Amino acid sequence: MSAQYHTVTPSDLNALTISIFKRMGCSDEDAILASDVLQSADLRGIDSHGVARLSGYVRLWSADRINTQAKPSIIHETHTTATLDGDGGLGLTNAAKAMDIAIAKAKEHGSGWVAIQNSNHFGIAAYHAMKALEHNMIGMALTNASPLVAPTFSKERLLGTNPICYAIPAGSKQPLVIDMATSAAANGKLEIAKRKGEDIPSGWLQDKQGTNTNNPEDLKNGGSLLTLGSSKEMGSHKGYGLSAFVDIFSGVLSGANYGPWVPPFVSFLPLAPDMPGKGIGHFVGAMRVDGFRPIEDFKTNMDQWIERFKSSETVDGQKEVIIPGEPEARIHADRLKTGIPLIDAVYQDLQQICRDLDLEFTL
Amino acid sequence: MSAQYHTVTPSDLNALTISIFKRMGCSDEDAILASDVLQSADLRGIDSHGVARLSGYVRLWSADRINTQAKPSIIHETHTTATLDGDGGLGLTNAAKAMDIAIAKAKEHGSGWVAIQNSNHFGIAAYHAMKALEHNMIGMALTNASPLVAPTFSKERLLGTNPICYAIPAGSKQPLVIDMATSAAANGKLEIAKRKGEDIPSGWLQDKQGTNTNNPEDLKNGGSLLTLGSSKEMGSHKGYGLSAFVDIFSGVLSGANYGPWVPPFVSFLPLAPDMPGKGIGHFVGAMRVDGFRPIEDFKTNMDQWIERFKSSETVDGQKEVIIPGEPEARIHADRLKTGIPLIDAVYQDLQQICRDLDLEFTL
Repeated sequence: MSAQYHTVTPSDLNALTISIFKRMGCSDEDAILASDVLQSADLRGIDSHGVARLSGYVRLWSADRINTQAKPSIIHETHTTATLDGDGGLGLTNAAKAMDIAIAKAKEHGSGWVAIQNSNHFGIAAYHAMKALEHNMIGMALTNASPLVAPTFSKERLLGTNPICYAIPAGSKQPLVIDMATSAAANGKLEIAKRKGEDIPSGWLQDKQGTNTNNPEDLKNGGSLLTLGSSKEMGSHKGYGLSAFVDIFSGVLSGANYGPWVPPFVSFLPLAPDMPGKGIGHFVGAMRVDGFRPIEDFKTNMDQWIERFKSSETVDGQKEVIIPGEPEARIHADRLKTGIPLIDAVYQDLQQICRDLDLEFTL
Repeated sequence: MSAQYHTVTPSDLNALTISIFKRMGCSDEDAILASDVLQSADLRGIDSHGVARLSGYVRLWSADRINTQAKPSIIHETHTTATLDGDGGLGLTNAAKAMDIAIAKAKEHGSGWVAIQNSNHFGIAAYHAMKALEHNMIGMALTNASPLVAPTFSKERLLGTNPICYAIPAGSKQPLVIDMATSAAANGKLEIAKRKGEDIPSGWLQDKQGTNTNNPEDLKNGGSLLTLGSSKEMGSHKGYGLSAFVDIFSGVLSGANYGPWVPPFVSFLPLAPDMPGKGIGHFVGAMRVDGFRPIEDFKTNMDQWIERFKSSETVDGQKEVIIPGEPEARIHADRLKTGIPLIDAVYQDLQQICRDLDLEFTL
């Protein structure tokens, strides 16, 4: 049973998404920016973070949990650090604006780092980190997220899938982009298994008793995703440590919420009582490569790094070693030409949003 | 069969280690610093990175691969970034000095980041990152290392166990210290299994054909350690991505070697031909917490973070959830009082070093 796809042009999808964000109250500028972030996920093949999420944002806005007319402001700063109060706005726009601040600081002082509080889901991490590339900088983006992941030895969901992203420029090669959840598997993989009625492999999920399970439905029955490493013996404490680092940089350093207090993405779940901070948190940064060495020398070595790894001898049955970010760059180039395939459920979701917001459906 | 231990006082061990480094040609200041780094590993229970490594440093020095009279110098910098040429010296001292530079930059501008080229093994990452803590800063330390790890789908050793370390201050609680290899298991775990004649679990090592193996001897027979995640299905591409990030920050950004060209720790292995950089590379950094928010607010929230995770409900059979860095802090407090237990092989190694260098063995 294969899903039915509706292939749409990037510009048509973008126009519709912009009109939806505007109808939600966003300024023209914010609607264009938010749409650009979603679009970049759809173009890069990270479909879980593209327009598939739009209905979630609409519901959070309907529940008064997203302020679409937010005016983010810097509430604390030094030459190279800042905290941005996102004013309860879209993470999509808050993180992108924070990255512009980080890049401006890096231009002047070599590096720039911005923690963001009082924000919401920021979309695909790579969009924000990759803004650094055109400035010949290395970009970084972190965010905490709805608690779904248990630390090693715990039964409780205390962490999000808390992604880490680094974008690193190269010369004639594609930039190297690492964009990864710190859980063994992202929630999207469970969703796919559920849709297909399939089991999931051991090592992704534990049930509410803390026992490894192959049933993807156990997540909603009180289970928890496992951290990268899956078991203590295979290093799950390392995935837990990485997720903790992301949570602390995003949540504690910014004055946002952290751990089990991070507001859920789904609007039907209540907020936790006694929240210690404001909204969800992100952390972004940029460093000038030529703060360390001439950019051309760096790019020459990066191209050599990529060539050497790419030409590495593979294990039997695998045709190539993959450079981080390479599959996404390929899909991006492809979808720019051939369009973005939306699964039917997402297509219908967009139709429903348009009906609800009294907008013409133009796809 | 349990190993025989010789328990020594920290001050006696330190005195001997200092005298060995001095006999190798280090200045008083460098000998004291290098010994302090090794000692911190032994005190924290990271025995693989303490005096157990001393004979390795001595052999590298004998083979003219470590310059014990190095004069490291800054060869490139901005307000918040710098590259340090380690002059072929001990990584132990180069990384610690680089961290001092990063801290000084952070004091003035909010953050400081130093890439180090032309260096050697830097010991325990946590020593360097934790230097930030007394300044109410967050510290970071990365290093690349001898190639022993294969990227996902590769048969080749292209990466080191490339550790990531973050040290984060807390209030009344111990600082949170993440210090982890980006491989599923560090080499030390294989050494322990070999010594005991035991198999290792699947997921740590592949043989030279790229097939998972339970025989720890397969590493020296052309096999490779696996990245954190162990298999593609469990996220080994994430461990690979993290290891790549460490290699690029440490090696490419600094102008050191990277990937398969990183000089081996063991002196009997030849250097790779056509090395693209100088020595091995590190990357360290510091950020002022009060560059983002008042330190007391941050510490209050960190204490709450730690308390909440610590009091989390455990899975059956586990008595507590562990905070990153907590076991090491416990061992540190303990060994300060009761001494450092050296296994007989390490004790004899130290005796041999003293004979070779015509030094009195004072333990």
